[in-house]
Amino acid sequence: MNKKVAVILSGCGVYDGAEIHESVITLLRLDQRGAQVQCFAPDVPQLHVVDHYSGDEMDETRNVLVESARIARGNIKDVKELHVEQFDALILPGGFGAAKNLSDFALSGANCSVQPDVLTAAKAFAAAGKPVGLMCIAPALAAKIFGSGVICTIGNDPDTADAMTQMGVEHHECVVSEIVEDKAHKLVSTPAYMLAQSISEAASGINKLVDRVLELTHTT
Amino acid sequence: MNKKVAVILSGCGVYDGAEIHESVITLLRLDQRGAQVQCFAPDVPQLHVVDHYSGDEMDETRNVLVESARIARGNIKDVKELHVEQFDALILPGGFGAAKNLSDFALSGANCSVQPDVLTAAKAFAAAGKPVGLMCIAPALAAKIFGSGVICTIGNDPDTADAMTQMGVEHHECVVSEIVEDKAHKLVSTPAYMLAQSISEAASGINKLVDRVLELTHTT
Repeated sequence: MNKKVAVILSGCGVYDGAEIHESVITLLRLDQRGAQVQCFAPDVPQLHVVDHYSGDEMDETRNVLVESARIARGNIKDVKELHVEQFDALILPGGFGAAKNLSDFALSGANCSVQPDVLTAAKAFAAAGKPVGLMCIAPALAAKIFGSGVICTIGNDPDTADAMTQMGVEHHECVVSEIVEDKAHKLVSTPAYMLAQSISEAASGINKLVDRVLELTHTT
Repeated sequence: MNKKVAVILSGCGVYDGAEIHESVITLLRLDQRGAQVQCFAPDVPQLHVVDHYSGDEMDETRNVLVESARIARGNIKDVKELHVEQFDALILPGGFGAAKNLSDFALSGANCSVQPDVLTAAKAFAAAGKPVGLMCIAPALAAKIFGSGVICTIGNDPDTADAMTQMGVEHHECVVSEIVEDKAHKLVSTPAYMLAQSISEAASGINKLVDRVLELTHTT
């Protein structure tokens, strides 16, 4: 009965890594629902390091896997070790790390590419017909993972949605407490902090996403 | 009706800062219960920086306030700006940061001292009779905040409990899903990751702590 879920993190902090609240709420809900969780992250340098107090860029380098390990309390693996046959589902929290470290969407928009190890892992879930959950800005990776015609949401930001549409996404607007599901691709997305004004607002949609992703593992 | 709660963080990551899960679960529960939250941290260097992937100490320096800002999504203030009259309650999550950055308990045990700005802020809540919540290892600060005879828990670790007893604490053993309350001091504590084997176990006690701290604000 215990479903196994892989979670790919992108650092530790909303401005240069994984959004911490989204990541922890995901881990909490998965554990509360009895799922077995393994965190992963790419072993690459962060695009940059942001002082989250001042908002300024810092003159230092940090590693995405090492910083992601903070959220995972050390229990994390290089995403190169993510083998789809060992898991029932995949979830990517958001934060700028998804657009700066897992991809270069923050720099290149519709011309972005996805970090190769992350793309290989995510495409394997898509090919296996196993459910995938993407939250916040992480759906910016959906076209690269699933190809043209994939349905997902980043909420209602027109510039972000336009860039995704150019990449082939069918963008559906969505409120923070809801999810958008692409039934054909078994892809679930929710806006989280693309729209959330508070942590409990973010949790409302994330909990629905986690629950739906777990439900979809029964149809695999 | 909206209670105002100050949360003091000690960095960002269990081994050298605030325990991230404990911190986020605290913020989530407070928000779900309608409390207004303001995060604080001391503007001091971390004792050290730990690579949470390898477990090794890293040859760099980080600032407690700057790193804590990651958990707070930038919405954080120097603990010097924490004025007790603006708040109804105070909560300190755990993580080694409580014993390394908010105090030197990890190094000095029963001979420890508390970071002066943190001590001033916390003692003001005690003096005002406003409720305080301490989780995980943070109750190691209780004797310095409340004085001899204070009742609290860090779970059941004998060495840690002994050191606290030497400082004047009356230590009560407690399971992860429960809280210990010192009614005279309006102090609530819970073991959290001193005992938790999973994030949902940690959440079980933390949610009770938050709920009880908020209840106690009605008796102020």
